[in-house]
Amino acid sequence: MKFSLSTADNNARLGFLETAHGIIETPTFMPVGTQGTVKAIEQRELVEIGAQIILGNTYHLYLRPGLEILRAANGLHKFMNWRKPILTDSGGFQVFSLSELRKLSEDGVRFQSHIDGSEHLFTPENVVDIQRVIGSDIMMMLDECTPFPSTFDEAKKSNELTMRWAKRGRMQFLLTEELYEHSQAQFAIVQGSVYAELREISAKQLIELDCEGYAIGGLAVGESAETMYAMVEVCNEILPQEKPRYLMGVGTPENLLEAIERGVDMFDCVLPTRNGRNANVFSRFGKINFRNAEYKNDFTPIDDECECYTCRNFTRAYLRHLFMTKEILGLQLATIHNLYFYQWLMKETRNAIREKRFAEWKREMLASMAMRSESGRRSFGK
Amino acid sequence: MKFSLSTADNNARLGFLETAHGIIETPTFMPVGTQGTVKAIEQRELVEIGAQIILGNTYHLYLRPGLEILRAANGLHKFMNWRKPILTDSGGFQVFSLSELRKLSEDGVRFQSHIDGSEHLFTPENVVDIQRVIGSDIMMMLDECTPFPSTFDEAKKSNELTMRWAKRGRMQFLLTEELYEHSQAQFAIVQGSVYAELREISAKQLIELDCEGYAIGGLAVGESAETMYAMVEVCNEILPQEKPRYLMGVGTPENLLEAIERGVDMFDCVLPTRNGRNANVFSRFGKINFRNAEYKNDFTPIDDECECYTCRNFTRAYLRHLFMTKEILGLQLATIHNLYFYQWLMKETRNAIREKRFAEWKREMLASMAMRSESGRRSFGK
Repeated sequence: MKFSLSTADNNARLGFLETAHGIIETPTFMPVGTQGTVKAIEQRELVEIGAQIILGNTYHLYLRPGLEILRAANGLHKFMNWRKPILTDSGGFQVFSLSELRKLSEDGVRFQSHIDGSEHLFTPENVVDIQRVIGSDIMMMLDECTPFPSTFDEAKKSNELTMRWAKRGRMQFLLTEELYEHSQAQFAIVQGSVYAELREISAKQLIELDCEGYAIGGLAVGESAETMYAMVEVCNEILPQEKPRYLMGVGTPENLLEAIERGVDMFDCVLPTRNGRNANVFSRFGKINFRNAEYKNDFTPIDDECECYTCRNFTRAYLRHLFMTKEILGLQLATIHNLYFYQWLMKETRNAIREKRFAEWKREMLASMAMRSESGRRSFGK
Repeated sequence: MKFSLSTADNNARLGFLETAHGIIETPTFMPVGTQGTVKAIEQRELVEIGAQIILGNTYHLYLRPGLEILRAANGLHKFMNWRKPILTDSGGFQVFSLSELRKLSEDGVRFQSHIDGSEHLFTPENVVDIQRVIGSDIMMMLDECTPFPSTFDEAKKSNELTMRWAKRGRMQFLLTEELYEHSQAQFAIVQGSVYAELREISAKQLIELDCEGYAIGGLAVGESAETMYAMVEVCNEILPQEKPRYLMGVGTPENLLEAIERGVDMFDCVLPTRNGRNANVFSRFGKINFRNAEYKNDFTPIDDECECYTCRNFTRAYLRHLFMTKEILGLQLATIHNLYFYQWLMKETRNAIREKRFAEWKREMLASMAMRSESGRRSFGK
């Protein structure tokens, strides 16, 4: 994997991340494909909306379809027929949020499957092995996502465990080889909760491992947006300029723009897909909830300047009807639009950075998103 | 509307049905789009799988989105952005199968909505008016779908009501005009349960109304397939050669081929869409149920000669995984395949009729579908 910075606008960076499955322009947003599918959208539509890379969840994929099938399929790319890059998380976050009876030890984390109660163990070493079987372009280290809130001492202890795990995970990565015909990269995850001092220690120690990239984890878990941005700043002052930076599980359009301004390159979040399935769509003019009766006679698109399949073909009245009648097509069309919007936002971001007008563009964009238009006819930036 | 027969192979007919929204080649299968969407498939994908016409349900559309919104949208075509023909049923069948507290009288049928319990009345006249608002290319008469089983006397009485309603419905159709910029046609529905004598009476009386086409209703409601085919034969001996014949709510691939052999031109059924959402797919080699564990390691497509998006891109193992994990994409991909298969079957049917080899082709096809191949690699007709 190769990362090259093409230009910067203050701390906002424009880069190219070269992987075995293609080049990713950064800043980039990764749609979440938990179980080998981004929910309610086809693979060809992911290409159509402009996705450059998707995320898979190791915890889910390890349980279903399981390693035997993934290996027989020659990895996740072939299993799901996705030819562009894939990043997989380490499974740690899902173990802590989904599984029952988890037991943390120095060795790793023992847990029961949320599906059938079967018992499993994730260690820093075996999550590398699992992600070798998955064959993701970018794999993540096993970490403990420090609970929020945690005291300084709790967060320090958790952070130290994550750092010890990172050393073991990096060793395992360096001692093993890819299983298929493409190379893989590994990112470590900075923890430290909301404590700048711990974030600094974490970032500095992880740099020693010389990973291909670094993630900022344990944020967007309940702390204020300001605290999150402050932690991102602390991390990015230490993380190497020449390596990609990934803010995990974030976030709203506003979160993305603020983090990009502070030097983040990569994001993933369930927000566009999950909100879409819940009748909530994003647009340049803010959010629309199709459960609202005001749209029942509204024969305009979500946004008449949006070029997505949904906006080019269907009205708000039709989308509202689909949600009121619980039709699957509503989930499909809202997902297409929301993911398109997130990709559009990243493309506009990259253009703004390239033209050194990111701060101004961001201010206008955030103002526009805060003033929802009823008609969808207002144009941004004109 | 204009119907022209191009050729026939014994009783099997090849025709062209010209509507304001395009020409339909018959025999044809109409995917069911109950509430202004064919479940789990996009409009552009309906075009892609070869749908020439879709069916909408008047009962559902009348309740949601309702006439006010459909009129404001300038009809169902524009509301759902479907540019090809639409046929709508009369709502009668759904009133009898879905609504509560229905009360049948000479005037019509009073019923309570299955959604909110609100009270409504369908009459032979107002279902014409409603279908004017919907703007379907082909509208159906209000009929009483005679329950099965019924005694001869019950079926006779029900049939007589349907025939009196048909006269009123035809009158209303002739006295009213289309609301939008395209013409509409009206089909009457032959009833008579499983009694040949009643079917003859019904067909003969309805012919007098000189409708644009005729449907055979009240079948596939519990009688044997042989009885259904016998009734189709009785009706088709009487129904005019020069008008399209539509067997309502039918059916399996075998049902379609048997009915085509007996002179039917049009079909609709929820089977391909509903079965698809239930993990059941059709193929040249019979049916596959993806809940079956034998597919978990099967990296072949459903049918490697099928040209649908699903078969060109995804394996049985992946489809099984999607169904086991309850992913929406499984519903989408199975729906695409099943509807493509039905359209493919009709295309092959038309080719066979054109080449006067329908009986032989049908025999081979039915034999192939009865012998399910495990590998999906066998080719039909080689």
